[in-house]
Amino acid sequence: MTTAYRLHYAPDNASLCIRLMLEELGVAYETALVDRSAKEQQSESYLKLNPNGLIPVLETPDGVMFETAAILLWLADRHGAMAPAVDSPERADFLKWLLWLANTLHPALRMLFYPEKFSPAHAPFREMTKTRIADLLTILETGPDLAKTSALSCYAAPMLRWLALYPQDHTAWFDLTRWPQLNEFCLDFEARPSAIRSALAEGLGETPFSSPSYPTPPEGSAI
Amino acid sequence: MTTAYRLHYAPDNASLCIRLMLEELGVAYETALVDRSAKEQQSESYLKLNPNGLIPVLETPDGVMFETAAILLWLADRHGAMAPAVDSPERADFLKWLLWLANTLHPALRMLFYPEKFSPAHAPFREMTKTRIADLLTILETGPDLAKTSALSCYAAPMLRWLALYPQDHTAWFDLTRWPQLNEFCLDFEARPSAIRSALAEGLGETPFSSPSYPTPPEGSAI
Repeated sequence: MTTAYRLHYAPDNASLCIRLMLEELGVAYETALVDRSAKEQQSESYLKLNPNGLIPVLETPDGVMFETAAILLWLADRHGAMAPAVDSPERADFLKWLLWLANTLHPALRMLFYPEKFSPAHAPFREMTKTRIADLLTILETGPDLAKTSALSCYAAPMLRWLALYPQDHTAWFDLTRWPQLNEFCLDFEARPSAIRSALAEGLGETPFSSPSYPTPPEGSAI
Repeated sequence: MTTAYRLHYAPDNASLCIRLMLEELGVAYETALVDRSAKEQQSESYLKLNPNGLIPVLETPDGVMFETAAILLWLADRHGAMAPAVDSPERADFLKWLLWLANTLHPALRMLFYPEKFSPAHAPFREMTKTRIADLLTILETGPDLAKTSALSCYAAPMLRWLALYPQDHTAWFDLTRWPQLNEFCLDFEARPSAIRSALAEGLGETPFSSPSYPTPPEGSAI
């Protein structure tokens, strides 16, 4: 690597959270496209980086990292930005919401997008998951202060985007304006230079979070 | 509070991870029993502490925390033990496995224990979840160094315990000795004074992780 970081990514995948973070931090990084159309994330060489076969992976001077929230937190702490410091009184609140995004909201999205990985009876499982996610968004609406740009914003914005787009033909239930604070957050966040650069790199369009359209990436595929 | 920390707990619930951590750190704490038999975790007063209605909650001088991994990490960083420091080269590896436990393994256990919250078709969903969990344990078997006691150990040991016990009548698939490293880890971990004290407090028996039996807690109920 000629830079400290190499991000293994696919357009509009969870790697988008890490790209937003790297762009916010203003640190140099390389990208390595994971070819989802060829299921490269399940290849022998990729499984050596992440035995779970999931995107993203970030190569760092301290070794290979996976898990979106772990990478976000590590980058924030290492660069002293985008998260309250360990000795800050705001650290406790930040961590509980970061872990909630990772442990509660993100797994629910994976169930919605990939029901076949979780349940033999896809359709009713998916419907129940939609209801659960709506309840979780109501918790998020009055939860952390997303307007204060942090690792939480870089994690939440893509998840709100994906709910509007995926799985195709199963997004009619989702209307971001039902959660006015989250809608406001997306409008503000997508105006940031970091978000504009990220959207350009992955072909996400001009309103990638508040009113997203399907990606037209310059390389690779989202699904 | 007369101590810095108050742990809202139920015996043999995820609060056990936090108790193990507090005992390892050797810091004083109070406990407040959450009466699961009365669904107290869904009460108005508890939902003010954690809008998700889940156990544990830890009250700290920096406010109320929820999410098991967030609390573990915050305690480790605050007390300078049980996790590599932010500037340690081992931090990246530690964080990725902590988040994996929180984001991947723990949600899978919740699906196994509470299938009715996730899927209308419980039985096939549960069977598919068992297969997924077995695959995840094979990843964990060659993953982090659990033998080096850390926040990871306090999170992993209870999860391995619960797989042997819950849901009742659905544990025949699980045999810890199939994963020799994990079995070894449980044997070592339950010999630690922190684990012995925790097991006594919650009525978990003498081999609470390697060969667990159903809890006989001095107060409250596990389910």
